[in-house]
Amino acid sequence: MIIKEAIRDIIHNLEKMERDIDERILDNFIEILTSAANVFVLGLGRSGLVARAFAMRLMHLEINAFVVGETITPAINEGDVLIAISGSGRTSYIVNAASIARERGAKVVAVTSYPDSDLAGLADLTVTIKGRTKIDGEKDYMKRQMRGNHHSRTPLGTLFEISALVFLDGIIAELMERFDKREEDLHNRHSSFD
Amino acid sequence: MIIKEAIRDIIHNLEKMERDIDERILDNFIEILTSAANVFVLGLGRSGLVARAFAMRLMHLEINAFVVGETITPAINEGDVLIAISGSGRTSYIVNAASIARERGAKVVAVTSYPDSDLAGLADLTVTIKGRTKIDGEKDYMKRQMRGNHHSRTPLGTLFEISALVFLDGIIAELMERFDKREEDLHNRHSSFD
Amino acid sequence: MIIKEAIRDIIHNLEKMERDIDERILDNFIEILTSAANVFVLGLGRSGLVARAFAMRLMHLEINAFVVGETITPAINEGDVLIAISGSGRTSYIVNAASIARERGAKVVAVTSYPDSDLAGLADLTVTIKGRTKIDGEKDYMKRQMRGNHHSRTPLGTLFEISALVFLDGIIAELMERFDKREEDLHNRHSSFD
Amino acid sequence: MIIKEAIRDIIHNLEKMERDIDERILDNFIEILTSAANVFVLGLGRSGLVARAFAMRLMHLEINAFVVGETITPAINEGDVLIAISGSGRTSYIVNAASIARERGAKVVAVTSYPDSDLAGLADLTVTIKGRTKIDGEKDYMKRQMRGNHHSRTPLGTLFEISALVFLDGIIAELMERFDKREEDLHNRHSSFD
Repeated sequence: MIIKEAIRDIIHNLEKMERDIDERILDNFIEILTSAANVFVLGLGRSGLVARAFAMRLMHLEINAFVVGETITPAINEGDVLIAISGSGRTSYIVNAASIARERGAKVVAVTSYPDSDLAGLADLTVTIKGRTKIDGEKDYMKRQMRGNHHSRTPLGTLFEISALVFLDGIIAELMERFDKREEDLHNRHSSFD
Repeated sequence: MIIKEAIRDIIHNLEKMERDIDERILDNFIEILTSAANVFVLGLGRSGLVARAFAMRLMHLEINAFVVGETITPAINEGDVLIAISGSGRTSYIVNAASIARERGAKVVAVTSYPDSDLAGLADLTVTIKGRTKIDGEKDYMKRQMRGNHHSRTPLGTLFEISALVFLDGIIAELMERFDKREEDLHNRHSSFD
Repeated sequence: MIIKEAIRDIIHNLEKMERDIDERILDNFIEILTSAANVFVLGLGRSGLVARAFAMRLMHLEINAFVVGETITPAINEGDVLIAISGSGRTSYIVNAASIARERGAKVVAVTSYPDSDLAGLADLTVTIKGRTKIDGEKDYMKRQMRGNHHSRTPLGTLFEISALVFLDGIIAELMERFDKREEDLHNRHSSFD
Repeated sequence: MIIKEAIRDIIHNLEKMERDIDERILDNFIEILTSAANVFVLGLGRSGLVARAFAMRLMHLEINAFVVGETITPAINEGDVLIAISGSGRTSYIVNAASIARERGAKVVAVTSYPDSDLAGLADLTVTIKGRTKIDGEKDYMKRQMRGNHHSRTPLGTLFEISALVFLDGIIAELMERFDKREEDLHNRHSSFD
């Protein structure tokens, strides 16, 4: 079944991501998150959904989180941090927002597949999450062609998006431990109207 | 031009709304808004857009506002208030949410055309904003038929939605005065990324 | 009551808007809307809420409408139109989007207070909706100062946003007439889950 | 590192999910998706983000997809399908929506951890995606207590949400194959403004 191929590709990428976690970057990320007055998250398309999934859990942990583009998101200021999620690190609206955040004195964390991208260049900290890089994509394409199979099992940013989501859910596990928060504490903050 | 007929119908409804404002209800509403720990707003469809427009200005005024259904909206608790906007006052999700809010000890303000509706029945305070009521609708329909005109100029909830938006923007003007907030103060809270 | 002052300022702006409607621009706008394969709407902040309110009614009228930034919005192409709503006409994301739309062969309609703005410069058609212009703002401010009143009754883009919403609801009335759509037809397209 | 524990728990759940895929349910799901006039997706909270991520890819594949609660979502009718995502299968708004969809003649697919839930009871097809079930949760809790560790590594619906996202991305891979769609085809449908 093709679905099983796709899922195994996704799991494979997650395993690689888990192995490559750099403890210093992790500690730095958590330090930034826990010392910020407000955490702003930003992504477009499916990366925006990943950003929201993370922000919701931050809120459950009583961290002040805001999603750029939602209704009640205030101005960003010194002491705040922008978590900008972009696989390519080149989305112009996001690069622009990172630049605005810096000018206003806020920190920027880039979550991207490309540590050499414009977004990463602007960031105080870059968390590199490999999706299928362009080169992998080309290799995959050649392999698929040789097999007479023209279809990617994980099109566009799929691998990056899922790996970023899982990484950020791992960050939530770290924060729960450090803040001594139990599942019940999160449950108590959960929206009353779902 | 039909567009001019439509706009004049809208203005006419706004004028009626302005004349009918009840100072005690206004004061009560502002008292609830300013004493709440958190203000939650809720509406579906175009009423949901009105709710968001209001929440954004509350945030500009440094009132803790949340939109039910957006990402970072926490649980509602005692000391909070739910502003529930529904023309008919019968939308089941909203009536249900008002009921949950009450059970959890929060106050409820209904913004509706029907002070006898289920939603109003659950509310601590009802702000009545007339749209075209069902009876008006039928009268209009008969008039239009006699003129050979079958089209409403302000279909569905249009009059209610616009009048509710304008009323709530008037509440913002009241809050600015009471909190001694200037336009510049609001501007400073405005999202940095628009 | 301050709320009444605010509402009267809003009504006054609507009356001026209604008087200034230019029939040729109206006809041109409706021609573009009705001949487009797909209508994309775009705004940020409260202008984005106005854009959504318009798109919802277009959908009720069975026009293919999409909101830029929502989940299922596809690529824009030749034969489509982008309705870009920005009071200032200078919001960089929106000017950029208008420029992309043009490059891809789509038409652009600007809804703005500033017919000389960058956004208007890119547009095939500009619908000018006066809010409080900068100059009005300064005059208002001097008047308020002389009265010892430092507060605007309609801060930031309030007048533009409400007037744009009412104008676009007037366009809906025109479209209903031209397509011979009754309120009931719109009702049948209304979301089943509200 | 706790983050690694969390990621391994997530991978472990994905592996179990991949092994348990039932080919008849898969085929049935794809048959429903490809024969529907319109596909509506619905979820609340983080399940709603999963629903959106799926809808975006359906749109990339030129399937008519709509997200319940977004602006341009029309009425659901016979010939359409509602994909309702709820870990517990008990969220009242979702159970209610499923019931409305059935009454209106549409099909319902439940994506849930509980095949005996109210939502599954209403569905034409139930796709069971195990998260941490209540019983697992209690076992986990006892294990954690014995280790002196009170913290869940994957709180609330985390396992369900990620597994549902990955399953649905696997469905996209199946659909690409069946429709003979290449990554480039999806790219051409991708929003022009991101």
